[in-house]
Amino acid sequence: MEIVNLKDKMRRVQEYWSPKIVGELNDTYVKVVKLRGEFVWHHHAGEDELFFVVEGGLRMQLRDGNRDLGPGEFIIVPRGVEHCPRALTDEVHVVLIEPRTTLNTGNVVNERTVRDLERI
Amino acid sequence: MEIVNLKDKMRRVQEYWSPKIVGELNDTYVKVVKLRGEFVWHHHAGEDELFFVVEGGLRMQLRDGNRDLGPGEFIIVPRGVEHCPRALTDEVHVVLIEPRTTLNTGNVVNERTVRDLERI
Repeated sequence: MEIVNLKDKMRRVQEYWSPKIVGELNDTYVKVVKLRGEFVWHHHAGEDELFFVVEGGLRMQLRDGNRDLGPGEFIIVPRGVEHCPRALTDEVHVVLIEPRTTLNTGNVVNERTVRDLERI
Repeated sequence: MEIVNLKDKMRRVQEYWSPKIVGELNDTYVKVVKLRGEFVWHHHAGEDELFFVVEGGLRMQLRDGNRDLGPGEFIIVPRGVEHCPRALTDEVHVVLIEPRTTLNTGNVVNERTVRDLERI
């Protein structure tokens, strides 16, 4: 039963937009990811997704407006809701909590889609 | 779609050992709880439980030894594993991530059992 230190895990993440698994419980994964710039608009048909900011600033772009988050804040994007995360700082360190089945780009499959996530 | 600031939520928690719901996604609740002193030994038969320390020090007592956590660290206690959380500091601020069905005292029902959790 490992103690997971988020900052230690973040230091091990080299790439942007490539979530790594740092914990699993029930049907859920806990992932860490570093964000830079803007992602891609997408939604997850059957999965709600939690974004928790550890460091930096995150803008969650939604069709009805933006939500800006700082360290210690989270937002839950419900299933079906289109969203596009964007870094407000040079990089943002984020924890994701979502079902094991969730694909990072949701309904979109492109060069930013990551399958077979690494555990760190 | 609310932005949840953990420190703001923690300020609204008055009682110890009484988890409050601050988010829900899929079959999972996100809760905040303030701990002081020691809880009760228990387990959850079918539910894994995540403890994330926001402030203070937490000792997770397990039958095979203790795990001590500080801010920015989490531990996942798997289903069936007996555990007894204990505050290492005057108070500890913890985020819990667990199924909607999870009862705080697990297999034990006593005066510390909390049902019908409040949302804050």
